[in-house]
Formats: sequence, structure tokens, C-alpha cells
Amino acid sequence: MGTVTTRGLFITFEGGDGAGKSTQVALLTEYLRGRELEVLHTREPGGTDLGLALREVLLHSENEIVPRAEALIYAADRANNIATRVRPALERGAIVLQDRYLDSSVAYQGSGRDLGAEEIRDLSLWATEGLLPDVSVLLDIDPVSGRERVAAQRGGLDRLEAESRDFHERVRAKFLELAAAEPSRFLVVDASLAPEAIAELVQARVDAALAAREVGA
Amino acid sequence: MGTVTTRGLFITFEGGDGAGKSTQVALLTEYLRGRELEVLHTREPGGTDLGLALREVLLHSENEIVPRAEALIYAADRANNIATRVRPALERGAIVLQDRYLDSSVAYQGSGRDLGAEEIRDLSLWATEGLLPDVSVLLDIDPVSGRERVAAQRGGLDRLEAESRDFHERVRAKFLELAAAEPSRFLVVDASLAPEAIAELVQARVDAALAAREVGA
Repeated sequence: MGTVTTRGLFITFEGGDGAGKSTQVALLTEYLRGRELEVLHTREPGGTDLGLALREVLLHSENEIVPRAEALIYAADRANNIATRVRPALERGAIVLQDRYLDSSVAYQGSGRDLGAEEIRDLSLWATEGLLPDVSVLLDIDPVSGRERVAAQRGGLDRLEAESRDFHERVRAKFLELAAAEPSRFLVVDASLAPEAIAELVQARVDAALAAREVGA
Repeated sequence: MGTVTTRGLFITFEGGDGAGKSTQVALLTEYLRGRELEVLHTREPGGTDLGLALREVLLHSENEIVPRAEALIYAADRANNIATRVRPALERGAIVLQDRYLDSSVAYQGSGRDLGAEEIRDLSLWATEGLLPDVSVLLDIDPVSGRERVAAQRGGLDRLEAESRDFHERVRAKFLELAAAEPSRFLVVDASLAPEAIAELVQARVDAALAAREVGA
């Protein structure tokens, strides 16, 4: 499969656990469907059947998993999800909303686990044949607040969420650095704002991208 | 974990399905144990618990798995197997015999699936922090004969074995090309010889590597 020119819009949501990504994906989906646009909602890991199997291995396994193996499993899930679900949707003009993508990999594996941001970025770009988002929404949250939200909502923490505070501080700093380096792709929002207020900021950014797409088409 | 200087010996067995790799691993294990050397026998995919879970996903899954995802899952298995089993064994001076390694990845994914030999080699070296074998035994077999042997012995073909003849011809050609490029690492043997005759050639090559290790130590 060669690289294709996408006609749809690829929007990713990034940020620490408890930042409210799934709430914002749901609110944006509702907004866009109200405008009669086709929306595909996907997430990582777990967007395909293969991804679900890999997610199970990653999050709930008793096995020892070294950091490089973990990064490669995420990349495998991504390769499958992008090739079989995201690219076909973008090619028919749909808007794809994805919960976590390239920037989460760079922040969590590259920076949090010291595997090298550059190497992790290259790995992900190889896996996806170079697919970059049109818009990336970074929901910025203090790791302590995020952790409290997750524990309150879900009643427990999985393996990744239970990492040390220092790990999550490095991840947050990397997200902000990535956003600062690509201001035209990122919208950075304070995740402590009310969900409706965040949703309005996101909608405005997406409306601008849709308008630009129509002009460019 | 940083890169370490290995003291043991890392020996890989490569070649198409039905070439007799597991028979040769068993015969060499017996030979080396008779000399009171510590031998670790491992294979890919599936050397660790994580590997077994990934092997299950790869070989018997009903899921659609795109070639890049497959290559990344193999690399994940390898990263875990090398870091948690092979490197610790080599560090304590053991002889590690591995059924398939770097060259199988390059031949199957890089050449058989057209993902690029260079990219697949780089991926594997990143996964293993650069671990190369001391000796690689290539059991060269005509794909038609190999397929007949597999069908006769196991009564069926799995997903990879059932690929087209053209695929297996490309894989074989790539194995031979890799061996020609690194003659000091490879021993190429005609897999249609009697198992005992092959075993003697392998033993002679391994004896030479052991002697060189003692001189170099």
C-alpha cells in the first residue's frame, strides 16, 4: 500500500490520564454529527480486533514486558488501526477522531521511558507510512489531579496509570514541548476548565480546519 | 539497560520451513551438553510468556494483520526474549541456540513482504540494542521440498507456511544473499543432506568459534 493523499480530517486527542479525552471525543462527535458529517471514533490501543488482543497483553498481563517490547506492541497496534480503519475513512472524506496517537507514544515511551523521542517518532511514522494528524488537541492536566479523577471515576488504576509521579511529570512536560514545537497542528487546552468550555474551544479549532479544507479542496 | 559485552556464544539457525532447524538445534544441544557446556535453547516467536501470547495472535488469529503490524509484533517478541533470556545467559557465559533471528526477519518481512530489508534490519537492531549472532547456520532448502516435509510431519500448514510459492522463493534467495554478504558469520548447509552429516558440519563450525572465544578471552 502506497502513501495516499487524505481528503478527510484526522484529529487526535492527547494528554495524561484523567484529562477528559473521552468526554471531549464524545462532545465533538455529537457536534460534528449534528452538522451531518461522517465521524469515525477510534482509540489506541484497541481500535481493531488485533488491537484489542494486544491491549489485553499490554495492560493486564502478568508477563515481564521490557520498554522496547511495549513500544513495539503499541506501534503494531497503530500500524493495523491506521491501515485498516483510519486511512480508508479519511480517503472517503470522513472525520476521524482518535484518542491518543503519535504524541502519546513520544511522550510516554520516548520521554517517560527514556527510549528516545526521535526513535519513537520514527518508529510510529514507519508503522503508519507517515500519517500525521491535521489537528491535535492537547488536554493539559497536572498529573496529581489526573490521577485523582481516574481513581474516582474508575475505582482503580491499571499498570500504566500506576507509574510513578516523576514518570507522569516527564510525560506532561514532553506533551507541552511537542505542542510548542508545532503550534499550527496543536490546540493546547487547560483540562481543569469545564467540559463545555473546552468543547467550545475544540469546536472553533475544528471549524477553522474544516473551512481551510474546503478552501484548499 | 545499556549494551553489554557478551562472553557466551550466540548461535542462530535460519532457513525455510521444513529445513530441519529444530532437529539440528536438538543435535547441537546434545553435543554441547556432552562437553558440559551450559546451553539455552530458545525460539521466535515464543521464547517468553509474552512471546507465547504474541505467537498465538500471529499464527492463529482470525484478525486482519497488515504486514507492518506483523513485523512490529515479531520485533516486540524479540525485544523481550533478548532482554530477559538471551542477554542474561550470554553474560554468564552460556551458549544460546536460537531457532530464527534477525535474518529470518529480513528475509520474511523485508524481502518476502516487500517492507524493505534495511528497515527491518534497523527495527530488529533497535529492538535488541544491537545484538548480532556469533554464528548463523543457514539450512538451505528448496521451498517445495520444505513444504512437503512440513505437511508430512505436522499434518497441516499454519498461516505463514501457507503463503505462495513465489513468496518462499524470494525468502530463500534473500537468505542466500545475506549469507554471501557475511561469510564469516554464516555457515550455509544443504538441508537435503542426512541430519547426522549436517550436525557434523555444524559442530565443526561451533568448535572453531569456541576455540576462537578461548583465544580471545
